[in-house]
Amino acid sequence: MRAVDIIMKKRDNLELSKEEIDFLIDGYTKGNIEDYQMSAFTMAVYFNGMTDLESTYLALAMLNSGDVLDLSKIKGIKVDKHSTGGVGDKTSLVVAPVVASLGIKFAKMSGRGLGHTGGTLDKLESIPGYNISLKEEEFIEQVNDIGIALIGQTQDLAPADKKLYALRDVTATVESIPLIASSIMSKKLASGADVICLDVKVGSGAFMKNVKDATKLAKLMVQIGKNCNKKMTAVLTNMDEPLGNAVGNALEVIEAINTLNGNGPKDFTLLCERIASELILDSGLVDNLEDAKRLFNQQIENRKGLKTLAKLVHAQNGDESYIFNPSLFKKAKYVYEIKSNVKGYVNHINALEIGNAAMMLGAGRAKLSDKIDHTVGIVLAKKVGDKVNVGDVIATIHSNIENVDNVIDMIIKAYLINDIEVKPSLILDVIKEN
Amino acid sequence: MRAVDIIMKKRDNLELSKEEIDFLIDGYTKGNIEDYQMSAFTMAVYFNGMTDLESTYLALAMLNSGDVLDLSKIKGIKVDKHSTGGVGDKTSLVVAPVVASLGIKFAKMSGRGLGHTGGTLDKLESIPGYNISLKEEEFIEQVNDIGIALIGQTQDLAPADKKLYALRDVTATVESIPLIASSIMSKKLASGADVICLDVKVGSGAFMKNVKDATKLAKLMVQIGKNCNKKMTAVLTNMDEPLGNAVGNALEVIEAINTLNGNGPKDFTLLCERIASELILDSGLVDNLEDAKRLFNQQIENRKGLKTLAKLVHAQNGDESYIFNPSLFKKAKYVYEIKSNVKGYVNHINALEIGNAAMMLGAGRAKLSDKIDHTVGIVLAKKVGDKVNVGDVIATIHSNIENVDNVIDMIIKAYLINDIEVKPSLILDVIKEN
Repeated sequence: MRAVDIIMKKRDNLELSKEEIDFLIDGYTKGNIEDYQMSAFTMAVYFNGMTDLESTYLALAMLNSGDVLDLSKIKGIKVDKHSTGGVGDKTSLVVAPVVASLGIKFAKMSGRGLGHTGGTLDKLESIPGYNISLKEEEFIEQVNDIGIALIGQTQDLAPADKKLYALRDVTATVESIPLIASSIMSKKLASGADVICLDVKVGSGAFMKNVKDATKLAKLMVQIGKNCNKKMTAVLTNMDEPLGNAVGNALEVIEAINTLNGNGPKDFTLLCERIASELILDSGLVDNLEDAKRLFNQQIENRKGLKTLAKLVHAQNGDESYIFNPSLFKKAKYVYEIKSNVKGYVNHINALEIGNAAMMLGAGRAKLSDKIDHTVGIVLAKKVGDKVNVGDVIATIHSNIENVDNVIDMIIKAYLINDIEVKPSLILDVIKEN
Repeated sequence: MRAVDIIMKKRDNLELSKEEIDFLIDGYTKGNIEDYQMSAFTMAVYFNGMTDLESTYLALAMLNSGDVLDLSKIKGIKVDKHSTGGVGDKTSLVVAPVVASLGIKFAKMSGRGLGHTGGTLDKLESIPGYNISLKEEEFIEQVNDIGIALIGQTQDLAPADKKLYALRDVTATVESIPLIASSIMSKKLASGADVICLDVKVGSGAFMKNVKDATKLAKLMVQIGKNCNKKMTAVLTNMDEPLGNAVGNALEVIEAINTLNGNGPKDFTLLCERIASELILDSGLVDNLEDAKRLFNQQIENRKGLKTLAKLVHAQNGDESYIFNPSLFKKAKYVYEIKSNVKGYVNHINALEIGNAAMMLGAGRAKLSDKIDHTVGIVLAKKVGDKVNVGDVIATIHSNIENVDNVIDMIIKAYLINDIEVKPSLILDVIKEN
């Protein structure tokens, strides 16, 4: 087998076999196949796409390029969720403890944030002492013990995916749906869950800018998972405005805690309810979505979700008193309110701009090596559909820098306020079949 | 400027500027732009193509990546020809001396053969002593002196093209018409002629398998040349059977000498007449093709073409007595006649198979490092359209290996003999405008 022939086959729009894809990824991981062949291949995929089967083989080949977590030592059903990345997305911090509080095992590996999207690990690290690095045995033991663990990805999880992603980034082949789907699924499959719920974000603040592409991506990921005998759900959600009100690490953890106390923002609570319920349903705990939702709301009301989050924080060396008393979180030096000088309804909030504004305050990373300031961020007071009068506070900035004129400007520009009263729709679609 | 943005622009089918193409090729030549970016770029070109202007900029950027011959010290009009490569193509050996014998300067750099196609340099080296390496000053002096020089390409002629071609070869991006056109034209433009005639081969033995693609390639190369103020002609010629009768180095030189004596094969003589006449016409020596053809035939009859070939060989240290007495050429040990066991008409001769058969005898190179046996080859006795009776010799094998059963098999398989009498057509089109 020769790499050039495989590239040619893809270039000529013929379907590749499992053996051919394995040969390519194995060779690439070991350094026998060169970057320049792989980048020609990914560009051919950009143009000709991949079938569901090819995408599955690619995900599996990347998964098998490194460590695969053996979760068989964990008793019971293991679930996982994944978001394609949005602004203000702290869903895992609510969904994972609520689901785990019902006896379903949540063994989750998460990533750090880059660019305008935040990372769950960065958020958790605003809790003093929280340790994101557990050994595989510790990870498994903790899940068996308290039903939940939330750690960073090990270095050797799907290394082919890491290598390939870095290459795609410099060769203009990131924006390929089968490559995105295989990349995400290689890591999800490597982490060993039985039930997976994917949150595919759509809109100005997301990677997928329109529903058509997001649907394609969601269906393909669902199919890859099903080909590997996973129970799959993909939820398509609107990222045309940030999720919830808080954007910034400690601010988002506080919002998650509020939500676990039953006082979360409406849109965010609704999304957590849906994703948690799909996982509860697919785990077989109940046989319909309404019952699953009832269980979710029950675990909020009886605070069992909140207590499970505290257990998680405690187990991973964090100070769980922060969970019960969020006023302990260190605050930013300056708090600025932004007031509206127009009246009307919030028609649209550019999530990308809000994410970038938070990044400028230090809440995110422009480069991987950037340090994060956990205290800073933005809290939106008005969301899409809300009525605004002149002088109303639309957002609050939490900053350690005194002069934030630029950031204020960005936030004001991100808000579109006009006479049209719109009803925001958050959950656009739920996909369980290709 | 960043390479990834240029790749993305081409991927998204937007036209690149001269500055962007220069940045890419300059960076690639200097090693600032990596192979993996260049291969993603060429794959994007494979899918989206290039405009005439982009192709011109690419040819010029590759031309400017190395030495450009300054032929301004050569007095008068300088002409050049190029063939995209075929089986039995010894046209330069006739066209160059005939045209030069009329006072038009023929300063030609040629290549070696690879695969089933032969190279002019390899053919010339079957003449003892012939030196293909002249310094630039010697080359210019010789052309000024005797009107002709035929040498190898200097190492530093369009080095970007060399680097890029090697990359395309291992990344399945060879078969792209704008990349082929830019590659050929970068070298032709670097060699400094005013008038260029391109022989674009079409058919089973050629790189371009159909007239449509060959026409596209020819038109694009003509346009690139015109954009650079060259007088351009492209002749589309049939490579569905080998050109002339002889395939193999010394055998082809002998056939060229016969042609210069007026005794060449009909098809080959016709093609030489046409290419030479286009060059004579475009040089301004005459004002119509008929007069140009008359001049060609006159230089054959008066042996001035032959004498100019002898002068060329003498000037480049070769033994010119071989030109006047071809029986001096060293012969292969064995000569085998292949006889037909069917009767009918030759309907088709697979040129690729004949080329491969000659290569198996040692006439060509499978790898660049292979040594060539100048004495061996194949002489076709029957060509397309010829009547064949059982027992007629269809071809003769000249070999230094005793057992040539495989080669005989290949040749017999290459001949399609049936009841249908076809009239071969050699010159399919002549293109002077895009």
